[in-house]
Amino acid sequence: MSRFFSKKYDGLTPYTAGEQPKDTKYVKLNTNESPFSLSENAVKYAKEALFKTNLYPDPDCTALHREIADMLGVSPDEVLATNGSDEILNFAFMAFCDKEHTAVFPNITYGFYKVFAEINGIPYEEIPLKDDFRIDINDYIGINKNIFIANPNAPTGIPLSVSEIEEIVKSNPENVVVIDEAYIDFGGESCVPLIKKYDNLLITQTFSKSRSMAGARLGFGSGSKELIDDLYKIKYSTNPYNVNSITAALGIGVLKDDLTIKENCNKIIKNREYTAAELEKLGFYVTNSAANFIFARHEKISGLTLYEELKKRGVLVRHFSKKEICDFNRITIGSKKEMEILIKTIKDILEV
Amino acid sequence: MSRFFSKKYDGLTPYTAGEQPKDTKYVKLNTNESPFSLSENAVKYAKEALFKTNLYPDPDCTALHREIADMLGVSPDEVLATNGSDEILNFAFMAFCDKEHTAVFPNITYGFYKVFAEINGIPYEEIPLKDDFRIDINDYIGINKNIFIANPNAPTGIPLSVSEIEEIVKSNPENVVVIDEAYIDFGGESCVPLIKKYDNLLITQTFSKSRSMAGARLGFGSGSKELIDDLYKIKYSTNPYNVNSITAALGIGVLKDDLTIKENCNKIIKNREYTAAELEKLGFYVTNSAANFIFARHEKISGLTLYEELKKRGVLVRHFSKKEICDFNRITIGSKKEMEILIKTIKDILEV
Repeated sequence: MSRFFSKKYDGLTPYTAGEQPKDTKYVKLNTNESPFSLSENAVKYAKEALFKTNLYPDPDCTALHREIADMLGVSPDEVLATNGSDEILNFAFMAFCDKEHTAVFPNITYGFYKVFAEINGIPYEEIPLKDDFRIDINDYIGINKNIFIANPNAPTGIPLSVSEIEEIVKSNPENVVVIDEAYIDFGGESCVPLIKKYDNLLITQTFSKSRSMAGARLGFGSGSKELIDDLYKIKYSTNPYNVNSITAALGIGVLKDDLTIKENCNKIIKNREYTAAELEKLGFYVTNSAANFIFARHEKISGLTLYEELKKRGVLVRHFSKKEICDFNRITIGSKKEMEILIKTIKDILEV
Repeated sequence: MSRFFSKKYDGLTPYTAGEQPKDTKYVKLNTNESPFSLSENAVKYAKEALFKTNLYPDPDCTALHREIADMLGVSPDEVLATNGSDEILNFAFMAFCDKEHTAVFPNITYGFYKVFAEINGIPYEEIPLKDDFRIDINDYIGINKNIFIANPNAPTGIPLSVSEIEEIVKSNPENVVVIDEAYIDFGGESCVPLIKKYDNLLITQTFSKSRSMAGARLGFGSGSKELIDDLYKIKYSTNPYNVNSITAALGIGVLKDDLTIKENCNKIIKNREYTAAELEKLGFYVTNSAANFIFARHEKISGLTLYEELKKRGVLVRHFSKKEICDFNRITIGSKKEMEILIKTIKDILEV
């Protein structure tokens, strides 16, 4: 830290992303990436853009917003694309939260919400999950605060139903409810249709998981035109050209190749069911995940030890040191072959 | 605006980027883009990345930082790449400015500094340029505030010398001086070597202008390891994967193809001298620009009228309504052919 760093950040702890090893020898099941590369069909849209980088991108992302809106069944002015969904989440904290309009989110969830609140100087409250790691919607009914919920939640993978989320949204009409649907395409039910009914609902999604674009950075928000207008103001006051033209072209290519994406999601769901069943056979407790990861613990081996033993054997998973969940590991669902290696390696560690 | 938008932004006016017409019929000299596409040599680095977007980028941009550091003659830990240089500028406002450490910049300069200050709630002061549109360094000596200066300045194109900037940096040891070198490659002298001597100096540069990468979004900052560490904290608290893997690969490709870049800059400089000389022949006053644009006014035609008449005839330039400079237009330097069209069109408008 330099002597110039603003004191307003005293106590700020930046987000810790999952390890990104520089070598590639690991079976990498630690950052919820897709095991599938983009298809030639999707990539071809971006190739032309590589030779047009001398021109600025369209800051309004007109073509991309139209494609996303079509996919969601909403209007283009109800969509804003961003440089990954982290950016739209940060924009939402910036736009709607302040000292009078504070934030709440579960104590076990995407670790970045807390960081977004802290860097923006927003008071926040973390609501504990129930003992079975579920969100109890009663904790969020009529609380009159801005609410951030990942659905399915991370790292548990447990989803809420659309009607449960509607209860929360309906009961907090004076506050914005942000539903982070980063993992919605693996079995959850999207709340996007509710944006037509509630002007206080913002949905965020990402191309990083189901759409194999983590490396290209593309996320978006969808909500009423008025909420989206506010987020545009933040974009135009921080980084108007936040989505580069290659990524925008790639996003369009991916949306036009949606059959491949659906097939990939189905494969992940199948591999998840396989992995969960195998782990249960080995005595693991596995949460009921609707995401591209599972969250599992074993009575006979600590979360940290399992993480370390897997890493030694070339398999990377994600361990969190937070006490409520330190018995668990979050395991990304990769290809069938990768999951077979995982199971085989765990058997080796457990000596069964 | 929605009823949820935070009152802290009352009075915020987002940045207005230059027009980005959706059709391509214009000779586009309004946003300081390069007329040159990237070479096949540079682009080949990115093609492989298109098929690896399922994996997250390296958040530390290790390979890219090494290339940028080599180019600058500094250490990789004295460099931070960002999603365009707007992002590193915003990070600098966030990291180093607050209510006690306010910001100053010229009243005529890159219009975004004011927006960055406003969105971050930072008090700021705008120091008028001299009558000849020059920055007087005496206005910045020992003022004990964080200083933001574009060198060459925009939209005037007028540069300061390294020794002039050193005076400013040396005389404000308790504050950060940010020198925005977006246009440095067209004839100015970079202050990067000074970062070894002064721990309060941050240089920002971009790949958007001289390196033909406006569409791909890549900028960076260079300063002492301690300053860069602070900016890393902001990055890891807002958007850890801010630079996507395709852009990072493209940046490396462009740096390896630096001969092409130098040739392109020399062409722009030559076209600038041609354009300035032709405009002067037509009676224009042209500032002494070291950038890829010129700033020109004519006694017989208002800035707005010239802008409008050029637009009618298919040539886009940038006009600013601010009263001190509303007589001028900022004209991007494009290809020789584009500049010939500009001159011919102006002759047509002036009926000479």
